[in-house]
Parts: sequence; structure tokens; C-alpha cells
Amino acid sequence: MPELRRDPIHGGWVIISTERSRRPSDFAPEERKTIGGFCPLCEGNEDRTPPEVFAFRENGTPPNSPGWSLRVVPNKFPALRIEGQLNREGEGMYDKMNGIGAHEVVIETPRHFETLSTLPLKAVEHVLLAYRERIIDLRRDPRLRYVMVFKNYGVSAGASLEHSHSQIIALPIVPTRVREEIEGAKNYFDYKDRCVYCDILRQELRDRRRVVYENQGFVSLTPFASRFPFETWILPKLHQSSFELMDVSLFPLAAEALSDTLQRLKGVLEDPPYNYILHTSSSPEEDRDHYHWHFEIMPKLTKVAGFEWGTGFYINPTPPEEAAEYLREAK
Amino acid sequence: MPELRRDPIHGGWVIISTERSRRPSDFAPEERKTIGGFCPLCEGNEDRTPPEVFAFRENGTPPNSPGWSLRVVPNKFPALRIEGQLNREGEGMYDKMNGIGAHEVVIETPRHFETLSTLPLKAVEHVLLAYRERIIDLRRDPRLRYVMVFKNYGVSAGASLEHSHSQIIALPIVPTRVREEIEGAKNYFDYKDRCVYCDILRQELRDRRRVVYENQGFVSLTPFASRFPFETWILPKLHQSSFELMDVSLFPLAAEALSDTLQRLKGVLEDPPYNYILHTSSSPEEDRDHYHWHFEIMPKLTKVAGFEWGTGFYINPTPPEEAAEYLREAK
Repeated sequence: MPELRRDPIHGGWVIISTERSRRPSDFAPEERKTIGGFCPLCEGNEDRTPPEVFAFRENGTPPNSPGWSLRVVPNKFPALRIEGQLNREGEGMYDKMNGIGAHEVVIETPRHFETLSTLPLKAVEHVLLAYRERIIDLRRDPRLRYVMVFKNYGVSAGASLEHSHSQIIALPIVPTRVREEIEGAKNYFDYKDRCVYCDILRQELRDRRRVVYENQGFVSLTPFASRFPFETWILPKLHQSSFELMDVSLFPLAAEALSDTLQRLKGVLEDPPYNYILHTSSSPEEDRDHYHWHFEIMPKLTKVAGFEWGTGFYINPTPPEEAAEYLREAK
Repeated sequence: MPELRRDPIHGGWVIISTERSRRPSDFAPEERKTIGGFCPLCEGNEDRTPPEVFAFRENGTPPNSPGWSLRVVPNKFPALRIEGQLNREGEGMYDKMNGIGAHEVVIETPRHFETLSTLPLKAVEHVLLAYRERIIDLRRDPRLRYVMVFKNYGVSAGASLEHSHSQIIALPIVPTRVREEIEGAKNYFDYKDRCVYCDILRQELRDRRRVVYENQGFVSLTPFASRFPFETWILPKLHQSSFELMDVSLFPLAAEALSDTLQRLKGVLEDPPYNYILHTSSSPEEDRDHYHWHFEIMPKLTKVAGFEWGTGFYINPTPPEEAAEYLREAK
């Protein structure tokens, strides 16, 4: 069973993954690792993944058989396990709990060589709708406090499978960075009686220098204090604390914003590795006024080194105004 | 002039490095980057760095000439600049200041192919004494609030020069992660009237499972909630908030602990890339009781992906007890 351990100083939690414990010889230098060979995520190989928990399928095709356009399956090597009671205990001065949670893979397409930026808009919309379904379902489990949706694209962004996919991890705690962001937004609201993200949208749409793309429902922009070159956020214009509360009628516009932004990044940066993370509320009711869900996309262009690890203080060599200009002109 | 910008939500600062602005074509894929060729840090090339601010030299050799065993020079491409007044201003809802600060390079040896783990103990002690000198000097500047000492070893840990060196960045703000760590330690002290790091030392020295190395003055251990495989901390046994306050008589023991620990990591992990960061107090007097300086060494073995960025929540595939066992048996 994986174990969750709490740092006694700053209070952040770590998953210690005992089951897939890696010995020194398992950390091969990067060059030796290759992606390729048999793909368990391709159509026809449904028996090589755990049974699906959600899918978009042609009418009449049974689960775990061909005929799907998107599948969600449990991760075969999960960081956390869904079975069992949540046990919290101490170990001297330290705090730990067993690794209860969910770890799922969203297989975005049955075809091996498609990517999120080349998929038709309808397929991107299905990816977003799958996120929604899984968040709503996982939030019903009272042991779980936060559902994190993210995508690693490219080996150097951490993807271990080439086939286009995203991941969902449901956690028994609210992670520190998520809590800090929501608290930061709350402090701003307490002081100004306005949502900080709504204020950002207003200022950026007036200023335009950092706006990359806009449609009726969504805006892509490079944030004022971008930590990474070409970091890009996608925000809904309508204030809403939680992604899964978004009206279904807005999903086509969200898909268009995500697809268009990823295509621009791909064009300007020659298909860069990237990570994106869905930032959404941990308790939609409580955070209703002050939090505003959004996507953060981080192309992996620079190496994050000691300085950044130690301080949370980033050095970004590309001003976001310049990045936005490149991205506006792309396509 | 580089610019410091504050994230309006969580309050962290970012350096936007306008002067060495990088365009899309500057982010070449990793394979194309090579280290090699002319080295500006080697003995004999003193004119290729900015003038030294500190050095250990043979008696009688003039500054910026051969005859040194260690030099500290300003970074030729600094992330921050020391000249000028600190100007803080707003830009609509955003906060920024100009990039005042210092960015220095500690050249640890005159010889190109030596590393910190192969240097004689006396040379390692000199590296630590150089950190001390520079911290004491930089702390005299009232514009600067924090001095960060760190080392990137190996290309994938962010080193852009092969020649053995560390870096020092002095900042006009206390970075968020540093503040959080010090506040975490303060909360623990307020509750228990004991230093959290002293408590960790007591529990770990009794338990021994995570202890890697020990001498009269220092302990190396893999922390209970290790974020990374083989993450290793070096702590002084004597409680002290700030590195630069350490008695000079303890420097040989500190050098031995650092050298020994790096040699063990090198032996077990085949000369891994790593980052280390000196964690020390931002205001030694104020933090006297609750903060305890230490080194954190993080071998760069896994890729930090979207999940970690989004949450500050790490998945570590090697339990620290196992890592410590490998490291104890090494050498």
C-alpha cells in the first residue's frame, strides 16, 4: 500500500510509493529510455488495461472492446489505491496515512499518432466532458478531498506513454499549493469584494498585450508573473469556482480555446513538451465567490534548477508580452 | 533591467529577465545543447569573468590573475543587477519592482575536471567559508532581504557550465517557500517550545533507519517525507538559525559531512545530476529559537511533471528508509 507522509515543517504531503519501489539501478540516464513498442492504450488492446470506468462508444459496443472514441481506465500502476479505509496515524513526531485515492488515465483517442492539438474539436470536447464526469463521480467519495486533472505531453514533461492521454488523481487531502491559491484568491476577495481572476480578465482584455486568443466564452493569456517562458492560462469569462459546474453548452467553446491555444504553442515552439493542469475548487460551494477555475499550460522549455526548488521563485527569460505576441501571430 | 513581478493570487515573485530575452528559436531541444569548448572559469582565463569579489589565493598573487584555489565573481549574465535604487510600483492591479540584487558564481577549483565530491576536504571547507564571507557581505546591503546559496551539478540539473561551481543570488524579497518554511518552524516552536529540526534530529538518531552519515557536528539523513528519491539533508547537531553564524571551528566537520554525503550519492547513483540548496534564516536574530539551518540535496533522477507543479504534492518511488540503506552501505 502506498503511504502518504506529511512534511513536519511546511505541512505538505508526499506519496511514498512503496509498491513500485525503485532501486538505484532503475534510474537509468535519460538517453537509455525510449518510448515505442507495444501500446496498451491503442484500440484493440482493451484487455491490456484495467476495466474502463467511463467511455464514449458507438451504440451497442460492449465495454472493454473496440468501438470507442475515448476511454477512462484506472492506472495500471497507480500512485494511490481506491480500496480500503483511510487510516491516519503518527510515527513519533511524524504524521502519515495510507495511500487511499484514485489514479485514472483518460485515453483521448483510439489512434496512436493523434494528439490533443490535432484531434477534431468534437473529440477535444469529449476529453473535457470526460474530465467532468470523472470529477463528479470521484467527488461523491467522502474519503477524497481533491480531484486533480492534468496532462503530461512529451517525454521530458514526464509522459511515460506516447499515446495521447491525460491523468486524474483523486486525493484524500487538499494539496498545499491548491490550498494556497484558493486562500490567496479568498484574501483578495475579502479585501476588494471582487474575484482576482475576474479582475485579471478585465485588465488583460483592456490592455491586450498578454492576450493570446479570445472567443465568446474563454480567454487565453500569458500571465503577468509567468513563471515559465510561454506559460499560458485559459480562463472562462463567466465567473465559476468549479470546472464541473460549467454549463454543458459552454464545452464546445472551451474545447475551441484549448485546441487553438495548444496549436499555437505547437506552431511557435516546434511541438514542445508541456504540462497542463486544471485548477478547480476543492469545495465549490464554499469557494463560490472568490475562486475561478482555469487551465494552466506550461511548455517545458527550460530546466528548473536548484534556485527554483529552493525558493519557489522563478527566473523567466521570456517576458509574457513577447510570448503572447508570438502566439497571437501563430497559425 | 530585469523586472520582479508578483503573482496577484498567491503572492510569489518571478524574475522576468528582459535583457537576455529568449525567443522561440532559442529553446533548442536538449540533444542539440552540448557542454564543452572554452571554459571561462579555468585558471588562466581570469579576464573572461567579471572582476573577483572574493578569493583564496597564494600569498602575493594579485586579484584576477592565476594563483587562486577558489574565486567568487559576479555572474556575467546576471538574473539581477546590483546597481541602482529599488523602485516598487504598480501596473493596474499588479505589483512589480526593478531587478535589484546580486548574482555571483563561486568557482570551487581552478581545475576543470574536479568536482565537489573529488576535491580534498580543505577545498570543500574553503567553498563553505566562501559562502559565509559572501553571505555576511551581502547581508550588509539594506536593499537585500535574502541570500540564497545553491549548486546545480550536471546538465539536467540546470548547470550550463561544466566547471565545478555554485551560485549565490541575493534578493530584495524573501521568497515564498523560504518564508513558509521559516513560518512552519515558528508554528511548531510556538506550539511545542522546541525546534522542529532538533526534534527531527533526536527522533532520527534514535531510530537510525534514515541516518546516512554522522560525525561529531553533523548528520546526513533522508527525510521522512522525502519529495525525491535519495533526497538527503545535512543538519548541524548544534541548533543555529543561520549558516553564517556557525563557529569557524565547525567548518571542517561540515566539509566532511558534505563531501562524504556527495561521495555516497555519486557511488550509489552513478554520478547523478543534483541540486543542493543552503536553507538559512532570513533574519538570524528574529528566527534564533525556531529556525535551524541545513543543506538539502536533491539528486535529479525523476522528471517533475504536471502533477507536482500543480499541487506541490510529490510522488516518490523510493522510500527514504531504503535510500538511506543504500547510502549507508556505499563507499
